[in-house]
Amino acid sequence: MDKRSRARLKRLPHRGRYDEAALHEVLDAGFLAHMGFLVDHHPFVIPTLYGRQNNALFLHGSAASRMVRALAVGVPVCATVTLVDGLVLARSAFNHSMNYRSAVVFGTAHLLEGEDKLSGLKVISEHLVAGRWQDVRPPSRKELKATSVLRMTIEEASVKVRQGPVLDDEADYSLPYWAGVVPLKINWSKPIGDSRLKPETPLPAYLKSFVEISANDAERSEERNR
Amino acid sequence: MDKRSRARLKRLPHRGRYDEAALHEVLDAGFLAHMGFLVDHHPFVIPTLYGRQNNALFLHGSAASRMVRALAVGVPVCATVTLVDGLVLARSAFNHSMNYRSAVVFGTAHLLEGEDKLSGLKVISEHLVAGRWQDVRPPSRKELKATSVLRMTIEEASVKVRQGPVLDDEADYSLPYWAGVVPLKINWSKPIGDSRLKPETPLPAYLKSFVEISANDAERSEERNR
Repeated sequence: MDKRSRARLKRLPHRGRYDEAALHEVLDAGFLAHMGFLVDHHPFVIPTLYGRQNNALFLHGSAASRMVRALAVGVPVCATVTLVDGLVLARSAFNHSMNYRSAVVFGTAHLLEGEDKLSGLKVISEHLVAGRWQDVRPPSRKELKATSVLRMTIEEASVKVRQGPVLDDEADYSLPYWAGVVPLKINWSKPIGDSRLKPETPLPAYLKSFVEISANDAERSEERNR
Repeated sequence: MDKRSRARLKRLPHRGRYDEAALHEVLDAGFLAHMGFLVDHHPFVIPTLYGRQNNALFLHGSAASRMVRALAVGVPVCATVTLVDGLVLARSAFNHSMNYRSAVVFGTAHLLEGEDKLSGLKVISEHLVAGRWQDVRPPSRKELKATSVLRMTIEEASVKVRQGPVLDDEADYSLPYWAGVVPLKINWSKPIGDSRLKPETPLPAYLKSFVEISANDAERSEERNR
């Protein structure tokens, strides 16, 4: 099998989108990747936080972790990011589906060192919470040594997207069953300050967007439930 | 490498929980698994809906899909389910973490036929939306032929859980940086009826729990934002 065929969509090709913009959209909307790799010919799938910059994913972990040790030697790796947007309940069992966006990315990873290592950590941190990196104690030399940072160049990728309403067989529309979509959203809640935080410590501006997202979602949920 | 060592937690063993109840708790709280398997020695990770019954996961897909064809021949497979509960923002970059529950499950899958196949589909359907299976047009013979259903016996598994507040190095507690947890919740929104639904079609009772969950979440969000 040639390399290209790995990422080719075998089924439902109308759901496939290959362009880089679509790929980056999914990768930037997510923050958790499921990394697939081999250990002694057995497949492992491990969840991990990531950051994206240009055509690469950045990952980190304890230098002693199985994932880091497995990936550091440059083996083929698959990183999959999935965002579920809703359940699609059709009139027939067969036409039930899911609204989602997913990216399946293939490549190889390598360890970063020195300044690149610190930059890689910053990419991951800023991907998760933009603005945080300037507002923490930076890693010490000892902490950096205990951490491995990997850069995975994206060599191939496929993006799949399913959005929209139920698609039933024409004959089934007359059936009496309820059909529709149950939307799903990931909600960040208001940040909870640590119990040992000094009382005067303000919530940083870069975290206020989390509160706003959460408040808007609550309002929208309210509207939907009226 | 012996089989047991695959699921052994290499790092942070205090996060590991091996008992079956803990495993089932994570598997029953989730609904999307990331399946890892090999195609021509390359790792693939594909997201899929699942159901759990006793010590097995049930999966389905188009009979022609790569995942189904790969798994149907009884190769080793890894299924990972991850539930993210929050970001843990520590005073040091190094002690940043994530609250989560994850299950990494190893086993082999086999195709179900006849009554077992239909039962398997029911397990998946009821896992997602309990009560739905009795309220849809069941699969036709032709539809069943186009669908493959797999039963994956859980041979080994590991569960990892991280919950709770920030854990900083003692010396870092005096630093001026904000620290705390940003909780994350998956919210189901009110089901949206299909545009071709007959106006008199009521929302089924088994879907009302989705609305209630959504309404409660909105209330809780409101409280948190006051």
